[in-house]
Formats: sequence, structure tokens, C-alpha cells
Amino acid sequence: MPQNIYDNPEFFAGYSSLRDRKAGLNDVLEQPAMRSLLPGVHGKTVLDLGCGDGQFCRTLIECGAAAVVGVEISERMLELARSHDNANVTFEHCAIEDFVANDESFDLITSSLAFHYIRDLDKVIVKIAKWLRSGGHLVFSMEHPVCTAAQGIQPGWQTNAGGDREHWILDRYHDEGVRRSHWFVDDVIKYHRTMASVLNMVIESGLSVDRVLEPHAIESAERERPSLLDERRRPPFLLVRARKP
Amino acid sequence: MPQNIYDNPEFFAGYSSLRDRKAGLNDVLEQPAMRSLLPGVHGKTVLDLGCGDGQFCRTLIECGAAAVVGVEISERMLELARSHDNANVTFEHCAIEDFVANDESFDLITSSLAFHYIRDLDKVIVKIAKWLRSGGHLVFSMEHPVCTAAQGIQPGWQTNAGGDREHWILDRYHDEGVRRSHWFVDDVIKYHRTMASVLNMVIESGLSVDRVLEPHAIESAERERPSLLDERRRPPFLLVRARKP
Repeated sequence: MPQNIYDNPEFFAGYSSLRDRKAGLNDVLEQPAMRSLLPGVHGKTVLDLGCGDGQFCRTLIECGAAAVVGVEISERMLELARSHDNANVTFEHCAIEDFVANDESFDLITSSLAFHYIRDLDKVIVKIAKWLRSGGHLVFSMEHPVCTAAQGIQPGWQTNAGGDREHWILDRYHDEGVRRSHWFVDDVIKYHRTMASVLNMVIESGLSVDRVLEPHAIESAERERPSLLDERRRPPFLLVRARKP
Repeated sequence: MPQNIYDNPEFFAGYSSLRDRKAGLNDVLEQPAMRSLLPGVHGKTVLDLGCGDGQFCRTLIECGAAAVVGVEISERMLELARSHDNANVTFEHCAIEDFVANDESFDLITSSLAFHYIRDLDKVIVKIAKWLRSGGHLVFSMEHPVCTAAQGIQPGWQTNAGGDREHWILDRYHDEGVRRSHWFVDDVIKYHRTMASVLNMVIESGLSVDRVLEPHAIESAERERPSLLDERRRPPFLLVRARKP
């Protein structure tokens, strides 16, 4: 069964405080990178998989999309989403894995930081390739394989006695599969895959990879909050844009 | 000026002993992965950039290639290469960066573990894309970005007091450029690039990425030499196959 961690009250409270404080990497790193990968969106029909509170759906409308469908498994996230003005956005309460659509019905399919929660990602990408119109694009972000690899086993940053970050720890890279970690609650399940596996899944679905990003934070944010410079020491996220021929 | 470290006598002696002992990763990891990426080679005209002792040129001929041109900057490596039977192989004593060829003159261009020595790799890949015939392939291997990133600054494997490998160290990932390290001699210069940079260079040259590999050692070798299992803990090499439309 697809995981619905965002409906766990404890998780949701922790996650909400993170987003409120804007202390996360979404606003200063992942979202700017996602926007930079968008093809021309004007007048397009878009599907956003794992839309959460609908932030990226609204970004797509602001960029000129004609219609956006947001798919989200968490009812709590959808409640948040519905508290905004969502003209031309339709929300579907559904796991990404269970969503169905007609072939060639979208110009653009996006997914922000959801793919690392999906067990059978290859099957989802095959469906995405069918749902796209010819010339359409898939744009997604996910936790970077060098971050998921040792998650739940090693601490991530190795720190010295003074608490300084000495370096990032990489291990178990080829050991693909479940990673259990603590993020607000115990046992958040993510799926580790190698970079090669992710890219080959996209290629084998018939899409062609046309841009790869491993972004660091935007420079204005780095100047304001120098700790963000650590995101240059190892890539936190992987983003890919692929095109249906 | 392109680096010619393989003509340094001390380096060459060290490197030769490594290859003789077959203790390196070439025979059990990198070369099998390169062969697995080869498209149909029968009757094809191939260019091998940074051919070293010509091992991969001979593999290509064994796979049925009609003609192979091997390009190598090191005269010592070429001497080694010429000591073998090289029917249908031509060697050119030349830096990869300085090699010239006619447009659309090769069906396949290969390069094994040489690209991390090239400063202006983007320019070389643009030339490769021109030298390939339509439908032709580029197949290359290089040191993986997670290995070059902290090279010369951090120790690679972090070991405990007993000498056991605790984990791989990753740092300075986004800091692209020169890495000076000691490999038989001081000051071997390599160029670190992110995974995204390497893939985007290929895509921007007009080639389409059609397979990415981050291989571990072949399993028979892992059984014989269990220390090779460490190569599953972080990817030592990145391999890419790309196709000219």
C-alpha cells in the first residue's frame, strides 16, 4: 500500500512548522530549480504528481498553464491546498501509484520531491510516458541518490567534537531499496535508487533526458544564511527534464 | 597543455605493476561494463580516445570492428600497445584535445577512463558529436563524480583505528575544476565535474543519452576477492552511452 506519512498528525505538525519557518530547502533550492527546468507552460495542460499543499500547482498557473491537475494521497495536505485560491486547478485525492489518466492527455507532468516515496517508480514512469502528448515533458525532483544511499544507517553529515560538519557520508550506494528514517516521526519509508537506475528508467520508458540538475541554493539565500553553502558539498536533490519524442 | 602523466617514468612503473598484478578495477569492473555498453560493432569504424596500451582497441577488433583508430598522448603507452598484434588498428600519437578528424567519419567513438584528465571536456564532446555518423554512438567511462569531488583533499575511504573502511567521504561536490592527487607520483591532475555537468555536456552536443551505468565488480571477481564488495558502497566509475540522432 502506498505510504501516506503526511496524514500522520505528528509528522504533519513537524512538516508544517518546517515549511512555515521557510527553513527547508524547498523555497531556496528545490522550487527555483524546478521552475528553471519548466518548458514553456503557457496554455498547457499539466499534471502535478504528489502536489502536497498545491504550491507548485499554483506556480504552474502563474506561469500561464491553462489547467492543472494535482494528485495527492494526503487529505491533510489537500486541506491546506484547498485553503488557497486555485483557479484552474483540480485536486485528486489519490496515491500517485493509483492515479489513472487517458493516454496523451497532458502537455507537461511534474513531480516535486515525491518519487523517492514510490516503490515501483519504473511502472509510474512508464504510465507517465503514455499520459504525455508527443513533444510533452516530464520534470521531476527527488532526493539525490547520494543522500538516500546511507539514510537510516549513517548520520549523513559526519560532525567533529565541536559539532562542525566534517564531510558527507556515502555508503550502500548499490544497495537499492527501502530506507527507513526518522523525519518528525519514526519509520518514514523512502526508496533508494542509484542515479543510473533513475535515468535508465526514464530512458527505457521512451522519454529522452534533456536536462539534469543537481542544484545548490540560490546565491541570495546563501548570502543571508551561510549554512546553505553546505548544500554545495553534496547534492541534496536530483532534478530531471525529459521529453516525449 | 594536455597532461602526459603516463610518460613520467615513475608513474609508468607504478601503473604497469598495477596492471600486471590485475589488482586494479579495469579487468573486473570497468572493462566488462564498457563491453556491455557497446552497440553492434561488426563492420564498424571506431575511434578510441585515450587508448593507452591498446587493450580496448583490440577488444573492439575481437568484437568485429572493421577498423579502429587509437589516439594516445603517451609514447610509452603506445610502445606497449605496439607490442601486441594490432591488425586493423591504427595508432595516433596525439592528445585527445588536439586530434582532428573529418565530420561523420566514425560509427562509434569510445573512451575508457580518460575524460577526467581533460580540462575542456565540453569542447571535445562537441567535436565527437561532429565526427560521429548519424545513428553512431559514443561510449565512455570516467572516474565517478563522487570519487573525484574530494580527491586530494579528503582521504576517500574513512578508516577506523583498526584500518577498516567505515564509509566513503563526499565533499566539495559543486566545486568543479582541478583535483591534484598522488597516484604513483605527486600532482596527477584530474578535473572534477558534477554528474549533471557531464550529462548536460553530452545532451548539449546534440547526442541523446541512451544508457548510464555505475558498475560494481563482476560477481565472480567479488567471490574471489571480497574486498571488491566495497565498490558497491560508492560508485567508482560513471559510464555513458549516447547516440547521434
